Amino acid sequence: MIDRLIEKIIETGNPTVVGLDPTFAMIPEYIRAEAIDNFGKTPEAAGQMLMAFNKAIIDQIYDLIPAVKPQIAMYEMYGLPGIRAYIETIRYAKDKGLLVIGDIKRGDIASTAEAYTAHIDGVSIEGAFTDIWREDAVTLNPYMGYDGIAPFIRVCSQKDKAVFVLVKTSNPSGVELQDLLVSGKPLYLHTAKLVSDWGLSVMGAGKYSKIGAVVGATYSNQAAELRSSMPHTFFLVPGYGVQGGRAEDLKDFADQDGEGFIVNSSRGIIAAYKQDQGTGGKIPKFAEKEFAEAAREAVLTMKKDLQKVFGSYHV
Amino acid sequence: MIDRLIEKIIETGNPTVVGLDPTFAMIPEYIRAEAIDNFGKTPEAAGQMLMAFNKAIIDQIYDLIPAVKPQIAMYEMYGLPGIRAYIETIRYAKDKGLLVIGDIKRGDIASTAEAYTAHIDGVSIEGAFTDIWREDAVTLNPYMGYDGIAPFIRVCSQKDKAVFVLVKTSNPSGVELQDLLVSGKPLYLHTAKLVSDWGLSVMGAGKYSKIGAVVGATYSNQAAELRSSMPHTFFLVPGYGVQGGRAEDLKDFADQDGEGFIVNSSRGIIAAYKQDQGTGGKIPKFAEKEFAEAAREAVLTMKKDLQKVFGSYHV
Repeated sequence: MIDRLIEKIIETGNPTVVGLDPTFAMIPEYIRAEAIDNFGKTPEAAGQMLMAFNKAIIDQIYDLIPAVKPQIAMYEMYGLPGIRAYIETIRYAKDKGLLVIGDIKRGDIASTAEAYTAHIDGVSIEGAFTDIWREDAVTLNPYMGYDGIAPFIRVCSQKDKAVFVLVKTSNPSGVELQDLLVSGKPLYLHTAKLVSDWGLSVMGAGKYSKIGAVVGATYSNQAAELRSSMPHTFFLVPGYGVQGGRAEDLKDFADQDGEGFIVNSSRGIIAAYKQDQGTGGKIPKFAEKEFAEAAREAVLTMKKDLQKVFGSYHV
Repeated sequence: MIDRLIEKIIETGNPTVVGLDPTFAMIPEYIRAEAIDNFGKTPEAAGQMLMAFNKAIIDQIYDLIPAVKPQIAMYEMYGLPGIRAYIETIRYAKDKGLLVIGDIKRGDIASTAEAYTAHIDGVSIEGAFTDIWREDAVTLNPYMGYDGIAPFIRVCSQKDKAVFVLVKTSNPSGVELQDLLVSGKPLYLHTAKLVSDWGLSVMGAGKYSKIGAVVGATYSNQAAELRSSMPHTFFLVPGYGVQGGRAEDLKDFADQDGEGFIVNSSRGIIAAYKQDQGTGGKIPKFAEKEFAEAAREAVLTMKKDLQKVFGSYHV
């Protein structure tokens, strides 16, 4: 899946993954009203809102980007109708040719991790295979070590799938554990070493392994060290835009060919029509009904911003 | 919720939480056959199996234990019908008077963690409150630091709910990150300090905070240090039984009154009718149809085992 991701990045000239993490505040009033007309103030209405919002966004941006990354929490919070919207969003995005990274951040003991592999591996029910979740890749948490990752590595060795393991996160309190010094080096570099080593057994056809890493864009001074610690690890980089990361800060996440990473932006794209929500006024004012067009515009603006730094590599 | 948990431990004389983590291999043939008769080899059948199995187990053990701990992965793997079984299991257990700890091990940035609080806080849909998940407590992952825990602490300050944050896990590779030395002390003791500090703002009426910790029973030599590092932190202790932990090993997890922890057993209880699956032959042979009675017997055997060490405290 990492090879396909790299192909699609080159094809679109755009190393951007759009985070589909809608909150009510981002969803236009008219979409919310329609869902409530249909279902009342119920989880079913929430599910319909999420789906209507995501479909319109995907329709406008699928040709510009390689992948989307739905954050499952935003769907899980509404129970079954929410999770139905998550699953339908994945299907819809895949039907449009997008790769889908499920931002699930699961992590557990071996037998439990085995169960979670259903996200990328499907399940067998008394011998009958069913592919329920269908993500191309998922994010994982490393706190419990190899046990929780191994079942996913097994899937990656058998199928064209991938995972991204949290190494250095972009949130302010990420430092509390991740930056503690172990033998003179911050913990996240030890995590980096583990992730890099885990990846060796499932290399793709090119430079990169199917075991990727999540490394935040808000710590650009650490980027070069992360890149050199994980030479064959593809990076999923959150934190661009609303969280404070700039294109300039991404430079050192790239390898010598300017490759090896994909940048996530969520709010900055999907809530772009709300000018003040994180686009820094860069996006021209859009009406509420044009929220999806605004997202398209925001993707194009971000692409230009990235190309200022990464130039012609991606085109 | 921690106060209620302690009350129920004293009431039942049994600091045991039963893990409801059924796999197909544990579910009796006749339950599986019936579900497949009804729904074919589908996720719906899986959901029905899980629910039929859990109900029978709960009916047999609810009067003996304070709480159950369903592992969401075992349900999530079957998509919507699986998650429906998870939610119904929670409702069923609560209707029987049990407390429910959702073993979800979520952990993310602040806005995402806020969404995950739905598990213990319910959600508001355009002003209408709905309680979808209804766990009394959930497990959380600390790798991203305070950001991911703070929204749950807010809920705990407002409601009778709790969380258990992973500190030292019982799985073999838990050591890979958790035992790295930071300033001469293993990382998990630094996590312990964070969790202990986070808990100070949401103390219950008694000795313990609503922010608990997950500490594995397979590392009993570390128990005393964990206890003294987290004097007001209630412990959820996995690893007893099948994972190798013995009652003797739990001694140092207790405070001076013999309190302050609850021990989880999953397979050892719910798959007790399969004698060889982890009960060490201690449970008399049960027929497949008596799987729930076998679980009851296993709970009683475990209770006796614990009482050998903790004596009359709990009775």
